[in-house]
Amino acid sequence: MMEAKYVYGFNEGNKDMKSLLGGKGANLAEMTKIGLPVPPGFTISTSACNDYYDNSELIRDEIIKEIENYLKSLEENLNKKLGCSKNPLLLSVRSGAVFSMPGMMDTILNLGLNDSSVLALANATQNERFAYDSYRRFIQMFSDVAMGIPKYKFENVLDDAKESKGYKIDTDLNSEDLKEIVTKYKAIYKKEIKQDFPQEPKDQLMLAIEAVFKSWNNPRAAVYRKLNDIPHNLGTAVNIQSMVFGNMGESSGTGVAFTRNPSTGENKLFGEFLINAQGEDVVAGIRTPQDISSLKNVMPKAYDEFVKITSILENHYKDMQDIEFTIEREQLYILQTRNGKRTTTAAINIAVDLVNDNIIDEKEAIMRIEPKQLDQLLHPSFESKALKNATVIAKGLPASPGAGSGKVYFNAQDVVEAKGRGEEAILVRLETSPEDIEGMVCAQGILTARGGMTSHAAVVARGMGKCCVAGCSQIKVDEYNKEIRSDDFVIKEGEYISLDGSSGCVYIGSVKKTDVALTGSFEKLMNWVDKYKDIIVRSNADNPRDAAMAIKFGAQGIGLCRTEHMFFDEDRIPAVREMILSNTLEQRLVALEKLLPMQREDFVAMFKVMDGKPVNIRLLDPPLHEFLPHDDESINHLAKVMGLQVSEIKRRIIDLDEFNPMLGHRGCRLAITFPEIYEMQAKAIIQGAIEASKEGIKVTPEIMIPLVGEVKELKVIKDMIKETVDNIIAAEGVNIPYTIGTMIEIPRACLSADEIAQEADFFSFGTNDLTQMTFGYSRDDAGKFLGEYVNKELLEKDPFEVLDQKGVGKLVKMGVQLGRSSKPNIKLGICGEHGGEPSSIEFFYNLGLNYVSCSPFRVPIARLAAAQAFIKNPR
Amino acid sequence: MMEAKYVYGFNEGNKDMKSLLGGKGANLAEMTKIGLPVPPGFTISTSACNDYYDNSELIRDEIIKEIENYLKSLEENLNKKLGCSKNPLLLSVRSGAVFSMPGMMDTILNLGLNDSSVLALANATQNERFAYDSYRRFIQMFSDVAMGIPKYKFENVLDDAKESKGYKIDTDLNSEDLKEIVTKYKAIYKKEIKQDFPQEPKDQLMLAIEAVFKSWNNPRAAVYRKLNDIPHNLGTAVNIQSMVFGNMGESSGTGVAFTRNPSTGENKLFGEFLINAQGEDVVAGIRTPQDISSLKNVMPKAYDEFVKITSILENHYKDMQDIEFTIEREQLYILQTRNGKRTTTAAINIAVDLVNDNIIDEKEAIMRIEPKQLDQLLHPSFESKALKNATVIAKGLPASPGAGSGKVYFNAQDVVEAKGRGEEAILVRLETSPEDIEGMVCAQGILTARGGMTSHAAVVARGMGKCCVAGCSQIKVDEYNKEIRSDDFVIKEGEYISLDGSSGCVYIGSVKKTDVALTGSFEKLMNWVDKYKDIIVRSNADNPRDAAMAIKFGAQGIGLCRTEHMFFDEDRIPAVREMILSNTLEQRLVALEKLLPMQREDFVAMFKVMDGKPVNIRLLDPPLHEFLPHDDESINHLAKVMGLQVSEIKRRIIDLDEFNPMLGHRGCRLAITFPEIYEMQAKAIIQGAIEASKEGIKVTPEIMIPLVGEVKELKVIKDMIKETVDNIIAAEGVNIPYTIGTMIEIPRACLSADEIAQEADFFSFGTNDLTQMTFGYSRDDAGKFLGEYVNKELLEKDPFEVLDQKGVGKLVKMGVQLGRSSKPNIKLGICGEHGGEPSSIEFFYNLGLNYVSCSPFRVPIARLAAAQAFIKNPR
Repeated sequence: MMEAKYVYGFNEGNKDMKSLLGGKGANLAEMTKIGLPVPPGFTISTSACNDYYDNSELIRDEIIKEIENYLKSLEENLNKKLGCSKNPLLLSVRSGAVFSMPGMMDTILNLGLNDSSVLALANATQNERFAYDSYRRFIQMFSDVAMGIPKYKFENVLDDAKESKGYKIDTDLNSEDLKEIVTKYKAIYKKEIKQDFPQEPKDQLMLAIEAVFKSWNNPRAAVYRKLNDIPHNLGTAVNIQSMVFGNMGESSGTGVAFTRNPSTGENKLFGEFLINAQGEDVVAGIRTPQDISSLKNVMPKAYDEFVKITSILENHYKDMQDIEFTIEREQLYILQTRNGKRTTTAAINIAVDLVNDNIIDEKEAIMRIEPKQLDQLLHPSFESKALKNATVIAKGLPASPGAGSGKVYFNAQDVVEAKGRGEEAILVRLETSPEDIEGMVCAQGILTARGGMTSHAAVVARGMGKCCVAGCSQIKVDEYNKEIRSDDFVIKEGEYISLDGSSGCVYIGSVKKTDVALTGSFEKLMNWVDKYKDIIVRSNADNPRDAAMAIKFGAQGIGLCRTEHMFFDEDRIPAVREMILSNTLEQRLVALEKLLPMQREDFVAMFKVMDGKPVNIRLLDPPLHEFLPHDDESINHLAKVMGLQVSEIKRRIIDLDEFNPMLGHRGCRLAITFPEIYEMQAKAIIQGAIEASKEGIKVTPEIMIPLVGEVKELKVIKDMIKETVDNIIAAEGVNIPYTIGTMIEIPRACLSADEIAQEADFFSFGTNDLTQMTFGYSRDDAGKFLGEYVNKELLEKDPFEVLDQKGVGKLVKMGVQLGRSSKPNIKLGICGEHGGEPSSIEFFYNLGLNYVSCSPFRVPIARLAAAQAFIKNPR
Repeated sequence: MMEAKYVYGFNEGNKDMKSLLGGKGANLAEMTKIGLPVPPGFTISTSACNDYYDNSELIRDEIIKEIENYLKSLEENLNKKLGCSKNPLLLSVRSGAVFSMPGMMDTILNLGLNDSSVLALANATQNERFAYDSYRRFIQMFSDVAMGIPKYKFENVLDDAKESKGYKIDTDLNSEDLKEIVTKYKAIYKKEIKQDFPQEPKDQLMLAIEAVFKSWNNPRAAVYRKLNDIPHNLGTAVNIQSMVFGNMGESSGTGVAFTRNPSTGENKLFGEFLINAQGEDVVAGIRTPQDISSLKNVMPKAYDEFVKITSILENHYKDMQDIEFTIEREQLYILQTRNGKRTTTAAINIAVDLVNDNIIDEKEAIMRIEPKQLDQLLHPSFESKALKNATVIAKGLPASPGAGSGKVYFNAQDVVEAKGRGEEAILVRLETSPEDIEGMVCAQGILTARGGMTSHAAVVARGMGKCCVAGCSQIKVDEYNKEIRSDDFVIKEGEYISLDGSSGCVYIGSVKKTDVALTGSFEKLMNWVDKYKDIIVRSNADNPRDAAMAIKFGAQGIGLCRTEHMFFDEDRIPAVREMILSNTLEQRLVALEKLLPMQREDFVAMFKVMDGKPVNIRLLDPPLHEFLPHDDESINHLAKVMGLQVSEIKRRIIDLDEFNPMLGHRGCRLAITFPEIYEMQAKAIIQGAIEASKEGIKVTPEIMIPLVGEVKELKVIKDMIKETVDNIIAAEGVNIPYTIGTMIEIPRACLSADEIAQEADFFSFGTNDLTQMTFGYSRDDAGKFLGEYVNKELLEKDPFEVLDQKGVGKLVKMGVQLGRSSKPNIKLGICGEHGGEPSSIEFFYNLGLNYVSCSPFRVPIARLAAAQAFIKNPR
């Protein structure tokens, strides 16, 4: 048996070993392999992290030994020694999970410094200031990350020192200042930990490695993983790398760059750098960095080499890269490369450009776009006309595109609460930190006063597809008094602003939004998508406006038109209520006769908009009491309008009241008791179809009966509808092809689908209700516990968002198999919320459904997800 | 291919051909075969009836031809001819379904009479009175049954005739009277039908046959079939038999007798006869018949022959027989035999006697008892002490045993409505008719003024197991003024009476009832039952009283103890409400601490009663708001008692309110949010078990977690309970074996039972909730449509009463198979209502469940059903 191996040198791995080495480690190995200037080091694998958690959070001796061996090799290789008082080796210790998790995991730089090696470093580099700057950074990071001492305690010392000397920036501090700071830092450490700052570098190293392991499970990381669908059991690798120094004076620096513009996708280097700084200074957004292009002037040689390397990397990885680099005394080092996060617009533009340049093919381009991200494109931006009249109150960096309006709140918690109250909120912060994640999720947009295009706020917002204006230094954000101030205005908590993440403009008030144009690269990509996808995408739409929107987004038909939504219209509800309050069949028929022409006109309009595309119309579904008023005022009004006693209406409302309406007298059960309702609707559909067809439109209505649980229900209703419809068609002497089918949304319908299929032209799986009944969760009430279920990981996902394949999916599968067993050519679709959710769409595609149907805005997402499903599993 | 055959002579069939010939036809053939004196004839099979319904209610020529051929043979055989003016053949036309349906189907006697054949009959028999009596009977029956002319129109004529002549009974009418009546009858026919009474006997015959076919689908028959679980698609046969005449004077007569007493089972001929009458006179209860024993005096030869034949028939059929006979001029004819309907007491006594006499074996005896019928034995009779002080106001025939008290109502509709209002009602009628069936179902008992032990009321009531006092001639029943009168008293509608169906006594007011003794034959039978049954029968019981009852009825353990029922106790509800209204964990713990000793005492008491038998305890299941008051008065009271603001309590009630509580925050979902509740209950169970075990009782509690839909829910709660329980056991230093399992009552639990089984010691299928969710029916609301579903035959049965094997059963089966696939020895039971329903028990037995659990009163039913399931399908 091969001995277990937990540690890998950078020369031992490659980019395909991400699950073992983490993304960072695998790419460091890959870059080493292809000869790029990477400071040497080694990676402690994710299996070591898992081993740590499997052993009650203890690093086993075997692994410690292996680490020590690799450290020894590294020392020999560089001819330096960790903690050596002559030629000390300094290390960076950085986490590296399988999936990139920016800002979530922890890093310690300059490890190996102690009171004696700092002298050696000063001596070796002939730069005492640099040595003590590195030492003070190390103490602070180590104390924070490994020992949990709050950062601000150190920052206060630094700020006091600068203030007392009248310095503006950190680099003004000289070596004597830094020595004093180091002394004070060590005192803080001793006060907090009750021990001296560890002087033994190997202790420092092991504590740091353990800190990285531990950080895998910190709450911020957990939230990020949940948000990004990253499994919790992957673990993180730890990269131990020899330090290079961007803070070794004016000929040194550090930076981050993308090979293309991550906001727009433009094929042009995009990034920032800081002179005489370490990497943390850039991403933290404390000093405002310079644009990468100006590096050309400062250090032309290093710049040219960097440009060459970015090109090598992009061609090697066949994707836009996000690269960290450090220049130590004009010598360039690459510290990290990864596929860069990008906006959806950028992702699409880049993918299409890469196909045009023959670097990737169409399928690869399709696979590159995360379907959910499309959402970002499909929501409105500000109307250009409205923008002209809007007052710009400030301009910041266009950190993440999109448009957002809302009331301002100054911390994450307040935003979360505002959202809970149904408000739209904008999160305004000096700068964001990982603790703000939840607030960012809930906000319509994010505004920060500090930080650049790669600051925490910018990176996270782009990842979320949330609009963000960052580094807006024209305003003062007073988090304590909860207001935004400038020379001209004050905006207090709860007042409206609007953010344009594409221009960086901040507007006062709420600015009107408009739809986006789906052209250019998007159109090209979606054409490819339609070429590959092998499942029809329809849309749910209850009115011509939504139907038109659906067609614009590429829907191939209507999968669900809920007729009850037509019932709620203000000018119709009186007739609906009259129908419900009828005491006799005769009265009810009179009321239905009033509704008939209204419903007919609805359907004529729908058929016209859809112009020949199929329209699936579901007959009345909700319990009748949903249409009745419940407050006294409305009841009195109704009584007056209808000429009925108030008491009579109240009695009827009580009669109709149900303990569990979801499981009550609704759907086709209404039609068993009151067949005349469905009869009217069937009439309206077919008369509407005839009217539309007379105007030359091809109409093939699909009439759908909801909530069937037993084939006999369906048969009775179907026969009644068929007779009604056929009589009208015969009387008119026309030819209108139509089909009659059913929702499959009750567990028993799935279980007896073989019988039901014999009476149905089609099935449409109603996975919303099916989820309710399969789990026994009322969607209206589950809010009380479902959040807790997801948080406590009792459920992986909210099953109303993502189809539960284990339970609900099993029933759908039975429904499909049984249905096809008795009617092989039955048309099968799905019209629950899951019809627009990518992982669910893949499941439905694999089951061989004919179509999915979702809300109009999710149609492009569904199309993309469908194409990806085909590419993953072609047939 | 053999030509289709639709008609069979009595000499062509036998008793095993019931499905083709109907019960009556098969037995007529069998009796013919064994040489008993059966008037010759033939049977038109049930397939002819089904053919009739398949052909739009038309008798096809092919079948008419076959009937004519058989008729011709019969004429030749008897040397008579239908409609012949010399030697006319008269026929009876009687329905005969596969399952006996007394009083439900229709009969026409004396067919073949017309204006000329009546003369021939008079001549041939030398009895003009008899001939015209037969003719007037025929016209009346034919008009009623075949043509739908109301009977009373004819009866009025008959009554007028008797009154005008001062006659008391029908037999006082002489031939001239009868001729006049015939003339008037024909006039009624002509007035109603606008045609002359049909004189062509073959027309009469075909109309009569069609009338029998049609009567299969009349509403009375449909109700009876529903009530007795008889499928609607069996159809009825028609028996065409040559007439013999009990109305041919004083040496003729007709009667009905049982070979044993159908009320008690006593082995003694039991029956009645009427001299100079036709069969209809006996069952209609219009003339009060004589006891069968007195036939010995009237016609000793015929009596002796009849006794001999009853003995032959009982031995031949190995069961108590119900025999119809006619004596024509001292010649005995047997017109029908069938297994006699009987009370449950009689059924058990007869079955046990037949085993003792080695006529049948134990298994056959077990199979002879309909499990549902046991219900009749298991309900209370009147307390003997209370009876002593009760006032007897009348005595009638003890027509069907049992005890019933209720308000008197005088028609079926009023009884149905009274039951709808939740009242107990007694149906009081002059005599009952098939139209009264629904009222009889709803009544606590039936009292009639007329009719004997084989009258409609008596036969039907015995079949239903409903108490009945018949022929109570001491009282006058005034149906118009709605009162009962005698010389001494008047009882008006709505006043209480009590009926003792075993003694025939009628009491004023409501008399206290008592439990029945389950001894003698019952005990013997149940011992055999326990010998054969191969599934454990437990009982649902929430308190020691029910548990004691369950043991008395033979329960082998408690399958479901609902702890919430303990929460509703008046002296506990304050602490429960305090627990619910707690704002903090600390407050809640204080309230739970108060509940702990109460729950502990409950469990100690349960364990003691069960004395070592297993007790399955389900932790809190319903949503918390069920425990809060909802009316203002109670809320104010609660506020006062608890020292809380009314507004605070109202707010909390609103907070806890749910749209669909059945699918809401209940069951184990409560324990995910408030683990301390289940923790308290687990403590109470195990502390109770320790206390009971200290008194020498063996205790093995089964702790059951409700509403699990996902294995992780179960695991989290199970781990918490296990820790709680193990800590207590360890601290006390005792050894209490216990198990933790779950209800399987959510569809998803069935679908993922393989996972759930890994964390469960046992499953208990909760088929009530499972039925709700599988069908999407709220049990509280489904009343609005479920009745209609069953009536319209959209569902065969109410799925809450009889397990729906197609849907719910499929899920149970999956749950069983998946559960066993990952834990082969998992204990499996069921504790829904279906645990006491015979067909469902057979299903569960066949699935191999370890136990069923039902309410105490249904335990004997379940035991018997379980034994029958084993006998049908032994393993």
